[in-house]
Amino acid sequence: MQEVPTLRQQDIIMKDVLGFLKVRTPQAWLDQAVNHLDILLIDHAHCEKKAASTALHLMFRYVDQPELLEKMSQLAREELLHFEQVLGFMKEKGVQYDHMTASHYAQRLRQHVRKEEPGRLIDVLIIGAIIEARSCERFASLADRFEQDDVHPDLVKYYRFLLKSESRHFLDYLQLARDISGQDIEERIEFFLNEEVVSIHTDDSEFRFHSGALPNQVSAA
Amino acid sequence: MQEVPTLRQQDIIMKDVLGFLKVRTPQAWLDQAVNHLDILLIDHAHCEKKAASTALHLMFRYVDQPELLEKMSQLAREELLHFEQVLGFMKEKGVQYDHMTASHYAQRLRQHVRKEEPGRLIDVLIIGAIIEARSCERFASLADRFEQDDVHPDLVKYYRFLLKSESRHFLDYLQLARDISGQDIEERIEFFLNEEVVSIHTDDSEFRFHSGALPNQVSAA
Repeated sequence: MQEVPTLRQQDIIMKDVLGFLKVRTPQAWLDQAVNHLDILLIDHAHCEKKAASTALHLMFRYVDQPELLEKMSQLAREELLHFEQVLGFMKEKGVQYDHMTASHYAQRLRQHVRKEEPGRLIDVLIIGAIIEARSCERFASLADRFEQDDVHPDLVKYYRFLLKSESRHFLDYLQLARDISGQDIEERIEFFLNEEVVSIHTDDSEFRFHSGALPNQVSAA
Repeated sequence: MQEVPTLRQQDIIMKDVLGFLKVRTPQAWLDQAVNHLDILLIDHAHCEKKAASTALHLMFRYVDQPELLEKMSQLAREELLHFEQVLGFMKEKGVQYDHMTASHYAQRLRQHVRKEEPGRLIDVLIIGAIIEARSCERFASLADRFEQDDVHPDLVKYYRFLLKSESRHFLDYLQLARDISGQDIEERIEFFLNEEVVSIHTDDSEFRFHSGALPNQVSAA
């Protein structure tokens, strides 16, 4: 495993991500995360696998984009390595991997993807950037929270280790969207970032890595 | 890139593969390969990508098989790395990556996959083993042929480099099929190996990495 970034390096990594996203993860979600470690781990493994699958899907569809092919293949390899690492943590902690319904997060963003090319690809890449940025922010927030609660030091270390690659994936997606578009796409990015804020602030009935918080009555149960 | 195996190591690697498959690649296909380098490279890249995709597909379907999840994730990562490497060779040689129809090879085997579990999974794993073994045998044959013709020394070296991982993938698939089945599956393996012989000896109208040879009249064109 690569080295865990120092706090100074972490600040630099997080500067891009926090400058991009419009909101931090709500405190309510973090409060609930501590009590949903099994779901967090299982869903994390699923997210890594799905990220690899999304990248591979793009590699099948856009064979005429050399930069995309190379970046997506590298990204998929890293996500798969993380998948294996998360399974390792689950094994250590006696958490059984299983099917799990996805959060509504990605779907809430993807419903706005344009049907026609090249808008379709640009939108998918922008959403990829946002999901990677949010993952990065959430790992950093989780690491800070677990450290503060003095729990799961192995995950604190692992989540901080992940920041570097998640942040690179975020920048890769964003760069691809800009390069392939060849136009100013800031307005489109802004649109999806605003949709993401809504998603992050919407209560969800099931706790997931990218979900909103559970409503108060469920959280207190 | 890892080291290219010595001829002694290559013999050891190939012993398993050649002891498994029932026939060597026909001379007619090798004769034609020399004149179809572009197709060979493009289809090779597609095959690596499809191999990764097949592995990922299994990882989505069989979440309750820890050995499968780990092996398939590792395999997918390696196939993606090879995909990137083949794209590198194509770039050097000025070959443009593009969509390409698949050979009938995998489909000819997959049409016999049983519909019910666990037969379905066992059959898919046996076919995976056969495809990896055939790829390994074909890379070795191509390397020998290119070397004999004194052409493409870079590919001679690369194809020999690939033997080690392809051979490992073949053994991994076979081991998974045996472990997951928990029964004697030799008869089923024999069935698919015999089907593979038919596929290998069937003329094909389009030259591909796993195709049969082109019929004589087309080959002479």
